[in-house]
Amino acid sequence: MGVNSNRVEAFSTHQTTLTVKVSVPMPPSMEVHTVCLPPQTTTFQKLKHRVSEIFFPEDPLHRFKNQTWCTKLLLGVQFFFPIFQWGSGYNLRLFRSDLISGLTIASLAIPQGISYAKLANLPPIVGLYSSFVPPLIYSVLGSSRHLAVGPVSIASLVMGTMLSENVKDPILYLKLAFTATFFAGLFQASLGLLRLGFVIDFLSKATLLGFMAGAAVIVSLQQLKGLLGIVHFTGKMQLIPVITSVLEHRNEWSWQTIIMGFGFLVFLLTTRHISMRKPKLFWVSAAAPLTSVILSTLLVFCIKSKAHGISIIGHLPKGLNPPSSNMLYFDGPSLALAIKTGIVTGILSLTEGIAVGRTFAALKNYQVDGNKEMMAIGFMNMAGPCTSCYVTTGSFSRSAVNYNAGAQTAFSNIIMASAVLVTLLFLMPLFYYTPNVILAAIIITAVIGLIDYQAAFRLWKVDKLDFLACLCSFFGVLFISVPLGLAIAVGVSVLKILLHVTRPNTMALGNIPGTQIYQSLSRYTKALRVPSFLILAIESPIYFANATYIQERILRWVREEEERIKANKECTLKSIILDMTAVTAIDTSGIEIIGELRKMLEKRSLQLVLVNPVGNVMAKLHQSKILDSFGIDGLYLSVGEAVAAISSSWKPQP
Amino acid sequence: MGVNSNRVEAFSTHQTTLTVKVSVPMPPSMEVHTVCLPPQTTTFQKLKHRVSEIFFPEDPLHRFKNQTWCTKLLLGVQFFFPIFQWGSGYNLRLFRSDLISGLTIASLAIPQGISYAKLANLPPIVGLYSSFVPPLIYSVLGSSRHLAVGPVSIASLVMGTMLSENVKDPILYLKLAFTATFFAGLFQASLGLLRLGFVIDFLSKATLLGFMAGAAVIVSLQQLKGLLGIVHFTGKMQLIPVITSVLEHRNEWSWQTIIMGFGFLVFLLTTRHISMRKPKLFWVSAAAPLTSVILSTLLVFCIKSKAHGISIIGHLPKGLNPPSSNMLYFDGPSLALAIKTGIVTGILSLTEGIAVGRTFAALKNYQVDGNKEMMAIGFMNMAGPCTSCYVTTGSFSRSAVNYNAGAQTAFSNIIMASAVLVTLLFLMPLFYYTPNVILAAIIITAVIGLIDYQAAFRLWKVDKLDFLACLCSFFGVLFISVPLGLAIAVGVSVLKILLHVTRPNTMALGNIPGTQIYQSLSRYTKALRVPSFLILAIESPIYFANATYIQERILRWVREEEERIKANKECTLKSIILDMTAVTAIDTSGIEIIGELRKMLEKRSLQLVLVNPVGNVMAKLHQSKILDSFGIDGLYLSVGEAVAAISSSWKPQP
Repeated sequence: MGVNSNRVEAFSTHQTTLTVKVSVPMPPSMEVHTVCLPPQTTTFQKLKHRVSEIFFPEDPLHRFKNQTWCTKLLLGVQFFFPIFQWGSGYNLRLFRSDLISGLTIASLAIPQGISYAKLANLPPIVGLYSSFVPPLIYSVLGSSRHLAVGPVSIASLVMGTMLSENVKDPILYLKLAFTATFFAGLFQASLGLLRLGFVIDFLSKATLLGFMAGAAVIVSLQQLKGLLGIVHFTGKMQLIPVITSVLEHRNEWSWQTIIMGFGFLVFLLTTRHISMRKPKLFWVSAAAPLTSVILSTLLVFCIKSKAHGISIIGHLPKGLNPPSSNMLYFDGPSLALAIKTGIVTGILSLTEGIAVGRTFAALKNYQVDGNKEMMAIGFMNMAGPCTSCYVTTGSFSRSAVNYNAGAQTAFSNIIMASAVLVTLLFLMPLFYYTPNVILAAIIITAVIGLIDYQAAFRLWKVDKLDFLACLCSFFGVLFISVPLGLAIAVGVSVLKILLHVTRPNTMALGNIPGTQIYQSLSRYTKALRVPSFLILAIESPIYFANATYIQERILRWVREEEERIKANKECTLKSIILDMTAVTAIDTSGIEIIGELRKMLEKRSLQLVLVNPVGNVMAKLHQSKILDSFGIDGLYLSVGEAVAAISSSWKPQP
Repeated sequence: MGVNSNRVEAFSTHQTTLTVKVSVPMPPSMEVHTVCLPPQTTTFQKLKHRVSEIFFPEDPLHRFKNQTWCTKLLLGVQFFFPIFQWGSGYNLRLFRSDLISGLTIASLAIPQGISYAKLANLPPIVGLYSSFVPPLIYSVLGSSRHLAVGPVSIASLVMGTMLSENVKDPILYLKLAFTATFFAGLFQASLGLLRLGFVIDFLSKATLLGFMAGAAVIVSLQQLKGLLGIVHFTGKMQLIPVITSVLEHRNEWSWQTIIMGFGFLVFLLTTRHISMRKPKLFWVSAAAPLTSVILSTLLVFCIKSKAHGISIIGHLPKGLNPPSSNMLYFDGPSLALAIKTGIVTGILSLTEGIAVGRTFAALKNYQVDGNKEMMAIGFMNMAGPCTSCYVTTGSFSRSAVNYNAGAQTAFSNIIMASAVLVTLLFLMPLFYYTPNVILAAIIITAVIGLIDYQAAFRLWKVDKLDFLACLCSFFGVLFISVPLGLAIAVGVSVLKILLHVTRPNTMALGNIPGTQIYQSLSRYTKALRVPSFLILAIESPIYFANATYIQERILRWVREEEERIKANKECTLKSIILDMTAVTAIDTSGIEIIGELRKMLEKRSLQLVLVNPVGNVMAKLHQSKILDSFGIDGLYLSVGEAVAAISSSWKPQP
């Protein structure tokens, strides 16, 4: 439990500036401190302060203060293009680290790019295109040093789900995918520009945990198509249709595919396991996908597959990203679908990108500016669909490899893009014989890490409601649909906040002998009741949503205390002290019940006393004139002072 | 401001049980108290406590404890039928009071009943039926002594709006009105039975203020139809169609109707004004509507109106409520409409009934049990539509008259119902010549009191966001629609809670010299910074929705403090103390950022210390094992103890 140095000693005073003798309980006279109002501010000043706290909590312009114009300009350029910040100090040592890590992630990015594009029902080559342009843009605009940018599993899955349930025509599908990516980028960049980054905070980690596990289960099951060699497969994404589809097409299962698939799957999972056990061997799992692709391609090439029923990727066009801005689709009946898909994939990819960036920034003790990252990711996704890229963000698995491989700056993304460039220009024909089954194995290996049952167990242990939110998003995604599952989980999270506000905790306090500390009677066995007083702490803002509850609960406390006193024949109750320290806000309903409570208790000859209202609560109590009814003896700065002053006032006057 | 007895005196000690010498600041040795965990409870016990706080906050069964079976039975009957509680002590003195008040509200209820039924587009007689059966049921089940039950303006308006925009056939309309009433009752009774009464708390007073004012404006404008004698009028309820309709049908305006209408309107408003000025003359405004009805009926009878274009009520059937359970409508295409209308009118009438009951209970210092009231109102509205009644609840205006006329028990409702009974049986033909214009004048007089601009001004002064919620519901109702206006207002209220949670207040604390009190530096000019310490208070639970913000904000506080120290050349910062008193809850995201923050500050050689986490926060910090990383010097019970213990540990050891 930590602290337990419960020394009861004589107090010696070294650095004493002022020595006060405090007597407990009830000194008849004592310095009583005024409860101050917060400094007077106009409505405009309040609004300005509020707006700056909402939109500029980290004070992004603090660097620009007290600088010359020239420095300000330089800082401004560095602010918008972080490459100029780290670029000026770039040297050969950093380059060597970035080169190694860049090549490592490229070896992972190429097979994963092809696989994820298939997951999104897009041509495999689009995955490679998306691993080329976006990383270049991010390396100029992004502020994370370890983020490895490219297509990711979750966003690919969601885009695939949402579009393929509605669109069958492959050309329209491609157009909509690019359009959705553009809207995802627009949405992301707008959130960053409007400084509304806190919107993504509403996807709590618990929610995301459940969501990602659910998505991983669905993605893995979907890969049974490739892994078993099934040709006709459902386009739906819920658990039941997928399993039904697997079982219904048993006649299409191909044993050659199954052997090859499960063989490589075991290989990939083993390498993953090794790297997890010994983080130094990260390169084992990093190199495994490319190794598998090469090995399986060679194998299929040797046995000239087709006849054996192993489906292959086939012809992929050589050359760089073709321009595709003419494929953006801004009118027509499917526009709403594209916008909706864009927003959902945009939020998800943003959440992943920001979370990954923050994780590695915290490890290396630098800060990533959420709103700036949103703009970087947003612009990257707005530019992407003009060059045949679909939605991209920072990938967790590749960023982890990047970090472990020793990446120092975003230059590793440029190295990776260059490797993809070489692949696109020269190596495409080599993928002709690559079997689709290997892509399925790669996807399963990548997403299986998203199922973090240990974290779910920790949630259960620490916070049952967080666990519930996690479960809701898991089952919501699994059985209903991705957007609805997410919406349910966000709903549960918000409901949790509202529940806490609607039914806040109240507790009776007692004095810890020998101190001015008042603490919960039920928690601190040392704490003693102060006779004739009922000291209550309210642990919540008082709002319309809980005002009635708080009023009833306080009256119940009073009733129970009176019954207790009657049973034990103690001194009668005279004063109710409300410790308002944790009442962090109040609204007009709250003010009203405070006034009503005072009147109701007064009719029973009980005095209501407020202690230590915080700044804005004090201001509102003052503005509403309710303080006047409390009078001079109704407001104190600390419970100790209130108890002392009130009990001394009860003494018979001389 | 109240308290300002800032006496700095020598302390004399009378009733001293224990005298402690506390030195400030930094005594090198001091008693340090352990931060306790809350008592160990199992998950089931926690759940039980949580559930009982959510659903049984007022401990409704406390009367039943330690009683014999016989008493328990009697208490049980009294619990469900409050009439047995007050009925046993009923006497002639109480009866005299109830008789006078009952007859007074009857004189108001009869004209208002007819008027409100017209407001709901129902036959006027339904308004009288609804003033007969429901008050009788309420007097048996209800726990308020002053509630006067019957049709009310808001619920009538809303039902009229929602149904008449979709249904034109009068028979179907009547069926749907009864069905909607039944569902309203079912919804209300279920809320009461399931003890979900707190749902209506989400309609804050600010929201209701705006809503009622908006509804009053619309209702008043709608009455221009009757007041100007227009025959063809829009069925819509928004501001613009109503005004357009008034202006378009100028050719239908009838000057006789206008003169009569405005004459009586001025009379009614004057009597209302008199009663408001002198509450003792409440009977002036209470008697005015019936007087107006009688006078206008006589007037129209004398001049045999029809030719002069004054429309009259016409024939009303004599006799008691006909049974109407065969008119309830449980299938078919309009069922959804009936359910929706039922839920909206149910919530609104419930809110009005409960608020009115609580208001007068508070004035007479008794308590109204919200959940029980819901059941009473709910059963009344479920039984009502079987006897040709539409939705009813406690009316604010009539309850106020009831209270002022000296009502003592719910028996005044029985008196009122008896008066309505006599009217239904014998007096119906007298209403033949009653002009419709007088009903319009009565409605306007009744609803004009709902526009409480002074309360709105108080909201503006005390709480700008409450004022915004009020404005939203006002304009939402006026320009969009009643249900959507309500939904927007509830949305704004919930957003306000979320905003407070998302961007909580943080502040730096300082010591008030000579005390162990630590208060906001910006608010208390007396408070002094403690050198080498940064003491921060967080005024909010730490949740997923604000975890990132709090982390960034704390880091900004540290940065700003370091800059300040650098500028002023003070001692370097060594320790950050987080006062967690107002952190009333934490979730897994919150726990994570506390851990991250500790690591980040440690890398900068700054110590992070937690002070006074509340019970459940402490429990979660303990369960998550994060406390272990804080160690023995990372957790204190009060800021004073933390400052003393840490600063003494910095002294060079001997």
